[in-house]
Amino acid sequence: MYADRIARVRTRMEDLGVDVLLLSTGADLPWLTGYEALETERLTMLVLPREGDATLVVPRLEAARVEEQPDAFSIRAWDETDDPVADVAKLAGAPATAAIGDHTWARFLIELQRVLPRTAFRKGSEVTAPLRMVKDAAEVEALRAAARAVDGIVGEMRARPFGGRTETDVHRELVQRMVDAGHERANFAIVGSGPNGASPHHEAGSRTIEPGDVVVCDFGGSMRHYCSDITRLFVVGEPSEEIRDTYTVLADAQDKAVHAATVGTPCEEVDATARRIIADAGFGDRFIHRTGHGIGVETHEDPYIVSGNTAPLAPGNAFSVEPGIYLPGRFGLRVEDIVVATPDGPERLNQAPRDLAVVE
Amino acid sequence: MYADRIARVRTRMEDLGVDVLLLSTGADLPWLTGYEALETERLTMLVLPREGDATLVVPRLEAARVEEQPDAFSIRAWDETDDPVADVAKLAGAPATAAIGDHTWARFLIELQRVLPRTAFRKGSEVTAPLRMVKDAAEVEALRAAARAVDGIVGEMRARPFGGRTETDVHRELVQRMVDAGHERANFAIVGSGPNGASPHHEAGSRTIEPGDVVVCDFGGSMRHYCSDITRLFVVGEPSEEIRDTYTVLADAQDKAVHAATVGTPCEEVDATARRIIADAGFGDRFIHRTGHGIGVETHEDPYIVSGNTAPLAPGNAFSVEPGIYLPGRFGLRVEDIVVATPDGPERLNQAPRDLAVVE
Repeated sequence: MYADRIARVRTRMEDLGVDVLLLSTGADLPWLTGYEALETERLTMLVLPREGDATLVVPRLEAARVEEQPDAFSIRAWDETDDPVADVAKLAGAPATAAIGDHTWARFLIELQRVLPRTAFRKGSEVTAPLRMVKDAAEVEALRAAARAVDGIVGEMRARPFGGRTETDVHRELVQRMVDAGHERANFAIVGSGPNGASPHHEAGSRTIEPGDVVVCDFGGSMRHYCSDITRLFVVGEPSEEIRDTYTVLADAQDKAVHAATVGTPCEEVDATARRIIADAGFGDRFIHRTGHGIGVETHEDPYIVSGNTAPLAPGNAFSVEPGIYLPGRFGLRVEDIVVATPDGPERLNQAPRDLAVVE
Repeated sequence: MYADRIARVRTRMEDLGVDVLLLSTGADLPWLTGYEALETERLTMLVLPREGDATLVVPRLEAARVEEQPDAFSIRAWDETDDPVADVAKLAGAPATAAIGDHTWARFLIELQRVLPRTAFRKGSEVTAPLRMVKDAAEVEALRAAARAVDGIVGEMRARPFGGRTETDVHRELVQRMVDAGHERANFAIVGSGPNGASPHHEAGSRTIEPGDVVVCDFGGSMRHYCSDITRLFVVGEPSEEIRDTYTVLADAQDKAVHAATVGTPCEEVDATARRIIADAGFGDRFIHRTGHGIGVETHEDPYIVSGNTAPLAPGNAFSVEPGIYLPGRFGLRVEDIVVATPDGPERLNQAPRDLAVVE
């Protein structure tokens, strides 16, 4: 699998005129080699020339963590008093153009630019994103398994009490359940109750959930390296008429946007589908984010479902569809599924009920 | 506090000839403003000119998370179809020299370099590191509180069984105990048992801990934004003579290195103190990492206790002292305390017993 990906990366480097690809922290490296660099001041970097052998430059004290891939790369362990940037520059040769992983720390790019002053640096995603955004059958199956795991958690949470608990307490439960359901890592768990739900990226806090609150739960993790991401709504007791009416608009927008996500449809048209319905109901200025993001080995990756992205959906594109309506000081609503574009139409990976779940 | 730090940062920018400081993900931004940027593809960036007003460029859907600091910066929220890199460039003016936060993603630096082609970029740490590495009394007290919390966990773990449990199980317990002890975030928990202890950055795995194993537990988190970091050793049953003898060497090296950490002593001399003792006992090539790292709002920061760092310790420097001896395929040993350099000599913040704790 890795050998095939490396071959496709090299073809793309050829097309783009990129002489060497440099990958450090972020999802490109594990996608390409199975090894994930630790986020530290000690540089780990794969040096992948368009032709010739690839080398993983890695701190000696982390070398024992690397599972060797003799077909893919050799290992060059550096000691504490070595200069790994000089090692990378030497292995890279004198490239006219280098692509460097998007999530590499800026300090390493600055240090590399100092020792390679004639090299033009481009974003690694120019090489990798078009490849990563088309999932093969095994990748879709991994995303499906991760989606099933969080669907199961939604089912369990529908039977759990919310009233009287803090957001932090629900957050902890979601994190624990993701790990118990087979995720190797819980990536995030947004729990926004009552007025806090109107802040889309609200951090779970000390607020106690009250009767009548809508609670926005948006959570996901990594399972066999592929990500889950789901948003569902829980209401403590019967929802008010206003919440129900607003939810009806949102659910319609989410459903229509999912159905619009057919192969060949521009990404921005999926966004526009949700946005039109929400705007027509008078909430246009309350839907303050794009409709979705691609998903794979990273929670957010290409393709983005956003105005301005005219790229047509291709078979194997996997992405979220998650419109929201946010009423500051009062409540927020968002519903999110992961969807895959297929020749037979959009496949929703998440099957958990999308209604306003009434909980205690 | 933040106003004072911003003033000191500006003085340093003046000294270095830096026209604008650009901070995104990483610890500089929360250290300077109290706000921590989310690690996402949506750019958050503080634009701090040497003179004039500072602005925090932030995605609109995260603006509600920002606690405003009217004296420190104003907020510029960008919408999903805006170009935040263009916003940053405009706010930065046409700087001759910009410093950009070390942990900013490379993709944002590349995008900024495209729109600011005549600007020289330097590492943000050139501005901030010398300031961050001298802790004031409140910062030392925060580090002390975090150290006390993990000391307490060591005390609890000494009474817990290890044999028959997996590393992952112990890892989970350490993470949970850090949160229960008041850390807002568990940053890491290395659990290396038996031969796995010989890999300094071993990731806790499925190995079951056996009688006779030494278990290296190295864990830390963030409490009131300041980090804890401690390493202690647990042995299941009575340790072998070889383990005891090797430990005696290590404990002596750690203790002598701590006592060497007086104000004015070059950082590399603290490293050399530990290294000489370990080398004299014949384990020179088994101590494969530096002796320590600075600690504060980040687990690893300046000053590094490593050969080549000739900087003398200054009052308020806080750092780890953590030599190790690693015997591949057999076992590993490491003991770590956080130490602060003071005019009265080195202050060990960690007080938990450092012996080989015999556990079930």
